[in-house]
Amino acid sequence: MKVKAVKCYDYVELSFKGNLDGNPFTDYYIKGTFTGEHESKTVTGFYDGKGNYVVRFMPSFVGKYSFDIEGSFSKEKYSGTFDVKKADKNNHGPVSVCGKYHFKYADGTPYYSVGTTCYVWELMDDKSIDKTLHSLKKSGFNKIRFCIFPKHYLYNTKEPRSYPFIGTPVDSVAINKDNFMEYNEHTEGNHWDFTRFNGEHFDHIEKCIHELKKLGIEADIIVFHPYDRWGFSVMGRENDERYVRYLIARLSAFSNVWWSMANEYDILKEKTLDDWKNIGTIFKTEDPYNHLRSIHNCFKLYDHNEDWITHVSFQRTDLYKTAEETDTLRATYNKPVVLDEIAYEGNIQPGWGNISGQEMVRRFWEGFTRGGYPGHGETYLPKDGILWWSHGGDLKGESWKRVKFLLKIMNETPGIGVKPTNWDWDCPSCIPEDDELADKTGYYIAYYSFNQPALKDFNFIDGNEYEVEIIDTWNMTIKKAGTFSGKFSVELPGKPYIAVRIRKKIVG
Amino acid sequence: MKVKAVKCYDYVELSFKGNLDGNPFTDYYIKGTFTGEHESKTVTGFYDGKGNYVVRFMPSFVGKYSFDIEGSFSKEKYSGTFDVKKADKNNHGPVSVCGKYHFKYADGTPYYSVGTTCYVWELMDDKSIDKTLHSLKKSGFNKIRFCIFPKHYLYNTKEPRSYPFIGTPVDSVAINKDNFMEYNEHTEGNHWDFTRFNGEHFDHIEKCIHELKKLGIEADIIVFHPYDRWGFSVMGRENDERYVRYLIARLSAFSNVWWSMANEYDILKEKTLDDWKNIGTIFKTEDPYNHLRSIHNCFKLYDHNEDWITHVSFQRTDLYKTAEETDTLRATYNKPVVLDEIAYEGNIQPGWGNISGQEMVRRFWEGFTRGGYPGHGETYLPKDGILWWSHGGDLKGESWKRVKFLLKIMNETPGIGVKPTNWDWDCPSCIPEDDELADKTGYYIAYYSFNQPALKDFNFIDGNEYEVEIIDTWNMTIKKAGTFSGKFSVELPGKPYIAVRIRKKIVG
Repeated sequence: MKVKAVKCYDYVELSFKGNLDGNPFTDYYIKGTFTGEHESKTVTGFYDGKGNYVVRFMPSFVGKYSFDIEGSFSKEKYSGTFDVKKADKNNHGPVSVCGKYHFKYADGTPYYSVGTTCYVWELMDDKSIDKTLHSLKKSGFNKIRFCIFPKHYLYNTKEPRSYPFIGTPVDSVAINKDNFMEYNEHTEGNHWDFTRFNGEHFDHIEKCIHELKKLGIEADIIVFHPYDRWGFSVMGRENDERYVRYLIARLSAFSNVWWSMANEYDILKEKTLDDWKNIGTIFKTEDPYNHLRSIHNCFKLYDHNEDWITHVSFQRTDLYKTAEETDTLRATYNKPVVLDEIAYEGNIQPGWGNISGQEMVRRFWEGFTRGGYPGHGETYLPKDGILWWSHGGDLKGESWKRVKFLLKIMNETPGIGVKPTNWDWDCPSCIPEDDELADKTGYYIAYYSFNQPALKDFNFIDGNEYEVEIIDTWNMTIKKAGTFSGKFSVELPGKPYIAVRIRKKIVG
Repeated sequence: MKVKAVKCYDYVELSFKGNLDGNPFTDYYIKGTFTGEHESKTVTGFYDGKGNYVVRFMPSFVGKYSFDIEGSFSKEKYSGTFDVKKADKNNHGPVSVCGKYHFKYADGTPYYSVGTTCYVWELMDDKSIDKTLHSLKKSGFNKIRFCIFPKHYLYNTKEPRSYPFIGTPVDSVAINKDNFMEYNEHTEGNHWDFTRFNGEHFDHIEKCIHELKKLGIEADIIVFHPYDRWGFSVMGRENDERYVRYLIARLSAFSNVWWSMANEYDILKEKTLDDWKNIGTIFKTEDPYNHLRSIHNCFKLYDHNEDWITHVSFQRTDLYKTAEETDTLRATYNKPVVLDEIAYEGNIQPGWGNISGQEMVRRFWEGFTRGGYPGHGETYLPKDGILWWSHGGDLKGESWKRVKFLLKIMNETPGIGVKPTNWDWDCPSCIPEDDELADKTGYYIAYYSFNQPALKDFNFIDGNEYEVEIIDTWNMTIKKAGTFSGKFSVELPGKPYIAVRIRKKIVG
């Protein structure tokens, strides 16, 4: 059979009728082997709940591909071919680790992560989802963390638009609204068949991932989380594994998918460290595309030395040291450092959700200039029950525009990524990660945070001329200070949140 | 002989002619024993350089005192009596440690330390000194750190008004202005007789200490420091000991004297840890009034467990964790925590001297609500070469007024001192140090720092009514939020730098 051509980093989806007796989710399997000139992958498919067995494959190269479908789902054997065309200009392919500390897309383009968090934005109604996508489009965010499972927590008591399994939920009227965590991990009153997935739930999430992909945004999917009144956090290992494999079969063909094993893994009391390692290892060994994998903490960082973890996903464990921990995390784990939760801009009660826009932006710059990748969230007291952090909707804060401004500067880095340098003990500062490039380009950024020097002396003894710019990270201006060489002094505004960028002048 | 009456906590000064052959500074001694109804002290005197042997004594009680003078300075024996009258209303006597973590004056009045630093304000000309005293008077500062020896450093290249020893200094034209530390500890070109003190230098400093005393300000005297082109930091142990004993003989009779062994002890490379212990121990054993004793660090805190140290004198060793270290320091050393250097408000180049007024005030509130005593300094780029931090003069910053406002609140604490409480993990908060008093008064302050909650819930289950005030620590306002009991919610401004004070309503 000849299948319609696809673009590189999109996916082909092959759907077949098959056996419907027994439980098609568990009693039968489907697999496909896809072979092109530069790659050959065998991928596992899934039963979509509507009578179809589905296999998806994302090609990473242009050219002719062939495929063979096998499995217990049917006596028929299927095979065929399709063409892979050039990727859309905006689709650079999946993100992977580049060197030790940074990321690049499959086509080699550097990826500077500036993420946000909207835990269940995709489980809201269509109008809300459209609003979120609109907000994301005007923002600079290129990663978003969200859950597959619905969320039960402060400001999150409503029912989601759908559930991941076939069954019926507990009556939400019975919820204790005073202590959300108290209700966690209870399963009484819920009736789910964990062996039967609700295809509509996943169809819908896929649509949302697709919309993110069109906007160039990575979908950092939270596989498990503890904010749960439905019992999805305490399904037991067998059900967990089936669910994880279903996710891989359905979602891994999306180029923009990342896997976050958990939000606050250490709050999910039923799961052991071995459970997490097992889940992480399934993703590592069974995801055909090797999408990025992480695990997010509450009180204590997970041991990020484990080899299934591709990058650090950090929630701060200290009120003061947040983005400032980046250097230490780099040195400790030798992996990219993504600062997924360094408190959110907002004004709600808990300390994790009420820092000012200025402090949020300060943490972004601290994170960047120390060679990490900061993350955002918004938790302003809602008039309408809607908080960006969980529901998406409109961006109300002051930091998101400044994050977009920072991203522009991050993207102007020579090579891929920066590292902290020891230029000056009293401010974080960075040079290109690649030493040769750092030397060649003479690229350097110092960030003065809450310090407010009115001048800074520099000394470049190499005889080259250097162009100096003064960046007001809050007011989003870049002012040329002039071209200098040797010993020189730069006058600064003498107020907080200023950075200086210095670049060797290209001669000729 | 009958001597003129003195007031309690002032001092009597007895001056006698004696032997002038040889070196009167070293060849002869003078001592006095002073006895009243409640105390008897033997104190060592000094040769004042102008032909007089002097003994000073500070009485701590009202009533009749007698004295006997002895020593090798003369064959004559002197004795006599004097009356001690009630202390001036503003003189509460020397400050000492109260309980584990706090301070009180000798008369029992609590002392809430809010200090500042002007390293050599008293070695400037008279006009400058008057200006400093005027600034101190309008400020709330009740402690000032300063040096006996002149200072050689960034913005400190001029000659002082006088020198502590007889001799001649190095020609200051030869100074390397690029690297101040490079010149440190050099003695070439200086010609001092370390066995002969310059009485005028000390007379003048005493006048300044007296002026501070009139303003109710503690003189936190820095005995040694490394910013030195005169060789006073490398005199050797014998000269150091003679100098230390001279200080004790001259200055300990001032009720407002504290002893700080060093500024940045770990930069004085010639002195060993044993030297510091020796110096500290001399003060502990020989100062008849047991004035407070500390030692200030650069890179590494001195071992504050040593028993001669009365309180922690902290310079932050981290750019971010500064006043936030208070709880840890309390728990580690079980002594009062004085945050003498947590960076200065200003705009000069080094990170220690360019935080904003807002960050300075934030550190003050953090320090206070964690049960410590913060310190101030100002380092604004000078037009006139004058920086408060070294020279005194005018206060130019924004934090000093807010420190005065904070002091008012500190002074309203029930009992003596506060301690951090675990009420709410996401903000520092305090209750009275005394648990019984905390329970009785129901006094509680939470400080939200750079967080900006728009509301906070409280729960007082004891049936009492509580008065709630919202303190804007930056705008210096205290607004009554109302009287509440049981579970209640307080609306807050939703901006940074807000504190809440809650006090049990006194019934009847």
